[in-house]
Amino acid sequence: MLELRLVQGSLLKKVLEAVKDLVTDANFDCSTTGFSLQAMDSSHVALVALLLRSEGFEHFRCDRNMSMGMNLNNMAKMLKCAGNDDIITLKADDGGDTVTFMFESPNQDKISDFEMKLMDIDSEHLGIPEAEYHAIVRMPSQEFARICKDLSSIGDTVVISVTKEGVKFSTRGDIGSANIVCRQNTSVDKPEEATIIEMQEPVSLTFALRYMNSFTKATPLSNTVTISMSSELPVVVEYKVADMGYIRFYLAPKIEEEEDMAAS
Amino acid sequence: MLELRLVQGSLLKKVLEAVKDLVTDANFDCSTTGFSLQAMDSSHVALVALLLRSEGFEHFRCDRNMSMGMNLNNMAKMLKCAGNDDIITLKADDGGDTVTFMFESPNQDKISDFEMKLMDIDSEHLGIPEAEYHAIVRMPSQEFARICKDLSSIGDTVVISVTKEGVKFSTRGDIGSANIVCRQNTSVDKPEEATIIEMQEPVSLTFALRYMNSFTKATPLSNTVTISMSSELPVVVEYKVADMGYIRFYLAPKIEEEEDMAAS
Amino acid sequence: MLELRLVQGSLLKKVLEAVKDLVTDANFDCSTTGFSLQAMDSSHVALVALLLRSEGFEHFRCDRNMSMGMNLNNMAKMLKCAGNDDIITLKADDGGDTVTFMFESPNQDKISDFEMKLMDIDSEHLGIPEAEYHAIVRMPSQEFARICKDLSSIGDTVVISVTKEGVKFSTRGDIGSANIVCRQNTSVDKPEEATIIEMQEPVSLTFALRYMNSFTKATPLSNTVTISMSSELPVVVEYKVADMGYIRFYLAPKIEEEEDMAAS
Repeated sequence: MLELRLVQGSLLKKVLEAVKDLVTDANFDCSTTGFSLQAMDSSHVALVALLLRSEGFEHFRCDRNMSMGMNLNNMAKMLKCAGNDDIITLKADDGGDTVTFMFESPNQDKISDFEMKLMDIDSEHLGIPEAEYHAIVRMPSQEFARICKDLSSIGDTVVISVTKEGVKFSTRGDIGSANIVCRQNTSVDKPEEATIIEMQEPVSLTFALRYMNSFTKATPLSNTVTISMSSELPVVVEYKVADMGYIRFYLAPKIEEEEDMAAS
Repeated sequence: MLELRLVQGSLLKKVLEAVKDLVTDANFDCSTTGFSLQAMDSSHVALVALLLRSEGFEHFRCDRNMSMGMNLNNMAKMLKCAGNDDIITLKADDGGDTVTFMFESPNQDKISDFEMKLMDIDSEHLGIPEAEYHAIVRMPSQEFARICKDLSSIGDTVVISVTKEGVKFSTRGDIGSANIVCRQNTSVDKPEEATIIEMQEPVSLTFALRYMNSFTKATPLSNTVTISMSSELPVVVEYKVADMGYIRFYLAPKIEEEEDMAAS
Repeated sequence: MLELRLVQGSLLKKVLEAVKDLVTDANFDCSTTGFSLQAMDSSHVALVALLLRSEGFEHFRCDRNMSMGMNLNNMAKMLKCAGNDDIITLKADDGGDTVTFMFESPNQDKISDFEMKLMDIDSEHLGIPEAEYHAIVRMPSQEFARICKDLSSIGDTVVISVTKEGVKFSTRGDIGSANIVCRQNTSVDKPEEATIIEMQEPVSLTFALRYMNSFTKATPLSNTVTISMSSELPVVVEYKVADMGYIRFYLAPKIEEEEDMAAS
């Protein structure tokens, strides 16, 4: 039997909003470690990995490891029916073919339960090796989202270049070109407004803006985003989920003419 | 001659927004009692009854009973041009074929008059007998609107079941099923947040969510909604219009397999 | 070389939003006087004239007169990427075929430069003679925008009639007719809320509402709008751009049956 009680239910609502456009169907895995998901987007270009650790739940009962196939759009539809202050409890029986989401309003006056059919989904679990990254940028998540959206009005790809001074986002399209530089800045009033760069060596990589924009759907989850890059590796765009976990998006760089553009 | 002056003109704006999607053309009736409307929706399934009592108007002159056929969409277009703080005066001559809406801004700097052609509309006036209801639920109108909207993302019909403990709204659709229970709760800070149940005997009836959602267009008129049900009768969903009247929606229950669903 | 630095960059953003729907491509002219534009709308019915005086810029370097052809939609796309508090600098080389917009965030942490290709645009510069107007109405710009929008839901043209007492906006359409009168009112708490009429003789002219609505896209630029009319001349609808200039829209009156309507 599975019973996970999450007091800050809005986190689960936001997690679903963050991934449902990228991934249609996926297996949620539940073990004593926590509640997790790993899935490729429908065009098999980007990977999303979610972890909500068991300690973050008020109550976490998971008698045996379970993998539950869900349609994320349907799941998001149901979670949208939860109030922002509701407690959300996820329940499933061992071997059952449904999952139940229970929503409790803060004053307990309104109790909802939504039952959803589970699906059988084939999925290979990819081992994601821990890697060392040449450059790690932490910056305000809204700033990153704004930059990806702005550049999308000009071009289709973004070159992200990290130096000690800052991070540069560049694009080029039919109507012209654009460069946006965010300088390293740690002397800010609020820590979440800082732009912090940890760099072993300069990196410059090209990515499809379409995916970057999709990743920024996770912006409501966290004030900051962390972008980790190495020349040979997919970029990792990570948003913390409160103190209980993270959502990480992986995207391989484009290896083409766009690289030339970065140098220009 | 007819001249009705309504200081809180926004009420008339909201009334039109509440009924214009349900009813296309309708006769407004004016007598010494007040300003009223009774009309079936275009598919002849739901009935709407509006009353604005003459005492609620600052000035109410109605020399003889009049029935004025109006296109509610056009009327709503004109009323949208009134400011929210405007005084609205409705004027018509006996036997004339137009009605005039006059809008006065609070400081009298802006005076508008909108003239609309009246229509000839056949309508039979249904006598709605006063009835005793087995169960009457009074609840926050926004809560009811939210529930109808949420359930619509899962199914097409709602089963409303009233017991002493509370009122349950249930639905079922392709992606799963949902139950939302609102408990009776009278110990709230603000009276309009209470959920109050008056019950002679338990009732469980099934309705088309499409109509329920249409009724909730009246939500801006009142903080609370009253839902009155008996097994043999159409449900009445009532919103008060300030102290001067009400808008009531009537809808016959569905008598089908959905009833079985309610029991499940 | 050209280098114009505008501390209140949001003004340029708003200017583009105000004209981009009316004019597709246009030449911006730069001289020691300032930065200006004059263009007909695509159907050659309305004229827009913009002036931002050189004194309004923090830095204004214009070595020789330049005329730069720009696609206003593309320019607006780029300016949308500037933050509302950003400083905007416009740069171009003599004889170059690009213009660069630089955006600096208030704390200098984020520096963007957007480069756009210039276009060759044929344009004749019309001399607009200074004229004496029979009636000049100054009123709140939001009020004027609201009136144009409201009347559009009833008819296609507006008759603007000015007398000493006030200004009347009238329209007529299939569903009825409407008159909105704004009284002269100078005793208001805030000067920008006044409606002030300077009149030599009464004027009544008819205009296409479609263009009037387009002009009101400039509403965010200024709290007030000035409407200048004479029987033989195009109306001038003017919005001030802070202390540094203006945007003026010119539109010829309709000389047809609508005039009769105005008299009714």
